[in-house]
Amino acid sequence: IATKLPKVGTTIFTVMSQLAVEHGAVNLGQGFPDFPVPGRLVDALTRAMQAGHNQYAMMTGVPALRQAIAGKTERCYGWQPDADAEITITSGATEAIFDAIHAVVRAGDEVIVLDPCYDCYEPAIDLAGAKAVHVALDPLTFAPDWAAVRAAITPRTRMLMINSPHNPSGAMFGVEDMREVASILAGTDIILLSDEVYEHIVFDGARHESALRYPELRERAFVVSSFGKTYHCTGWKIGYCIAPPALSAEFRKVHQYNVFCTFAPAQHAFAEMLVEEPEHYEELGAFYQAKRDRFRAQLLTTKLKPLAVPGGYFQLVDYSTVSDLDDAAFCRWLTIEKGVAAIPLSPFYETPPAGQRLARLCFAKNDATLDAAIERLRLL
Amino acid sequence: IATKLPKVGTTIFTVMSQLAVEHGAVNLGQGFPDFPVPGRLVDALTRAMQAGHNQYAMMTGVPALRQAIAGKTERCYGWQPDADAEITITSGATEAIFDAIHAVVRAGDEVIVLDPCYDCYEPAIDLAGAKAVHVALDPLTFAPDWAAVRAAITPRTRMLMINSPHNPSGAMFGVEDMREVASILAGTDIILLSDEVYEHIVFDGARHESALRYPELRERAFVVSSFGKTYHCTGWKIGYCIAPPALSAEFRKVHQYNVFCTFAPAQHAFAEMLVEEPEHYEELGAFYQAKRDRFRAQLLTTKLKPLAVPGGYFQLVDYSTVSDLDDAAFCRWLTIEKGVAAIPLSPFYETPPAGQRLARLCFAKNDATLDAAIERLRLL
Ligand SMILES: CSCCC(=O)C(=O)O
Ligand SMILES: CSCCC(=O)C(=O)O
Repeated sequence: IATKLPKVGTTIFTVMSQLAVEHGAVNLGQGFPDFPVPGRLVDALTRAMQAGHNQYAMMTGVPALRQAIAGKTERCYGWQPDADAEITITSGATEAIFDAIHAVVRAGDEVIVLDPCYDCYEPAIDLAGAKAVHVALDPLTFAPDWAAVRAAITPRTRMLMINSPHNPSGAMFGVEDMREVASILAGTDIILLSDEVYEHIVFDGARHESALRYPELRERAFVVSSFGKTYHCTGWKIGYCIAPPALSAEFRKVHQYNVFCTFAPAQHAFAEMLVEEPEHYEELGAFYQAKRDRFRAQLLTTKLKPLAVPGGYFQLVDYSTVSDLDDAAFCRWLTIEKGVAAIPLSPFYETPPAGQRLARLCFAKNDATLDAAIERLRLL
Repeated sequence: IATKLPKVGTTIFTVMSQLAVEHGAVNLGQGFPDFPVPGRLVDALTRAMQAGHNQYAMMTGVPALRQAIAGKTERCYGWQPDADAEITITSGATEAIFDAIHAVVRAGDEVIVLDPCYDCYEPAIDLAGAKAVHVALDPLTFAPDWAAVRAAITPRTRMLMINSPHNPSGAMFGVEDMREVASILAGTDIILLSDEVYEHIVFDGARHESALRYPELRERAFVVSSFGKTYHCTGWKIGYCIAPPALSAEFRKVHQYNVFCTFAPAQHAFAEMLVEEPEHYEELGAFYQAKRDRFRAQLLTTKLKPLAVPGGYFQLVDYSTVSDLDDAAFCRWLTIEKGVAAIPLSPFYETPPAGQRLARLCFAKNDATLDAAIERLRLL
């Protein structure tokens, strides 16, 4: 069988999680929390099953959940999408990204991605027969180079993908960045895909610059988010896409014949949770900020140098005073020899910046887990 | 926005379910049970959440579930797939069908489908840039015409899709059919996609001829099934694909970047259910046979003529003595004027057979629901 996806191998997250298990390492690699899902959510899901919400949901998603998302969007970003025509529930943000790309990107098109970028973007673009055009973020600050983005646009450019708060760096777009995006896209027919799964994990009073805040962006955007990061349940795989009616219509054609609908009882549970306990997502930034600050203070007692983390639940560390290995080799060594699993940045790049010596640590962990990791990292 | 899927509209299932709600019709249209999920399954899922199985499952699926499926396959079909290399858990059979097509079908390829066929096949083929080649089953018996299938093969044929027990007709392939498939595919590089979601709903002592029973078929097949039909939970969307290692490897490349994994707690619950209570799927045929027989006897007291139902949970009825409307118009009329929602067959065809006067009724319903429908159908 000749493969259609020659570049796809085992994802770095699976590789490092397996290595962590094999070597008994503290796993700060793959991004997932090790603390429990809110009890209310588990109860609500159990009640939904008992109430008989076990048959096909509507293809677009359970109406109460779409309405709850519309309400939350208004509350958070000052604009309310139409729950019927503009919101679709998916099997996680990954399915939403896949569907958005397949809905509008055609063979021969180009899609601009900003490196380092999450590993599901390019294979979905490849499978649509299109080409990912990589523009690098600054290798130290992860700020976008908008002039380079402008220069990358060709008549074939169909989509620009952005991600703030950013995985793997934690960098966030500011108002100026959003204005740049708007100005770059104005007058073109380029569609924006904005991956905002860390939307509620933002720190130091910063504001998440959702594309939904900007009329000139949301009118041409697929905005993708999910509940996995917000509710500590990365394995539940309930995500959603907000897009104008014409884009949502195309998105739904793919979704309808890709998965049709996703696990119905959880949709009911999230509808209840969003409406009844908005404190959960409102307080999530403070919850993670405490973790970030505690972990950073501990890292400062090691030889690793923590970079600034404006948002998300990943901490980048500069390991150049510890090792001259490249990042893939360093992360393997750290996992196998030192008992702490981390994620290298190079797999997030088409062309990794020469000499970059950074590793990604996930701090969505209990204090005891982070303490155990720090104890080992102190021995570097 | 120019659409990539010009043929896709709202699915007939959604259309008829909405019409049923609007007109207070008894809904025997869209296929879903109106009785509860087994209590043990709900309990097992709740326990899985409480035990903390809420983070990403392995991309290929929870190991205990893949092992349980391997065991069930051996028990049912006399052959055990390798749980690590040959089984992948998906977001329902729909995702599995989409991934299998996208894994191996390329732009310009042809895929043979047997009409009438389930509505997700062709859009997935279209999205892969390929062409569905339709070969009709017999319009009365729904038996395949293997000579016509042979004649439809060209150098571009990449895949043959089959489905037994068959939706919408309930027809089943026999040993001779499987031998024909094997003989047609021998010496070609055509891949088989076998949709077997009704595998446990078979009647009158018949044997389900899974492609997995036949070495010469399973070595070139994606065999797709799901738990929705078997466990009365069509809204849970947990399915799977069994395929040889080389095909599974390509399948997983698509799955990994399409949804990555699906709702983890349900995977644990099905693992427990399959192992601890095999009676459930072993007795499912008898459970549905009683419903089929009761419903058939009742239909014989109406003007509708029930066709034979070897498997699945759909009853075809010939309405030619009641109405001369085409099937789409008849099903609308039946729903709006007579209060019973049914599904026409024409949307399952590229070219519906002239003069076919058949409608599909779902009997995966409580006796009270079927009784209410029959009361209305007696007035035709
Ligand atoms: C699907 S595994 C990857 C999880 C994740 O988002 C990350 O670690 O970046
Ligand atoms: C996804 S809705 C269609 C359900 C079904 O399998 C059918 O009614 O044939």
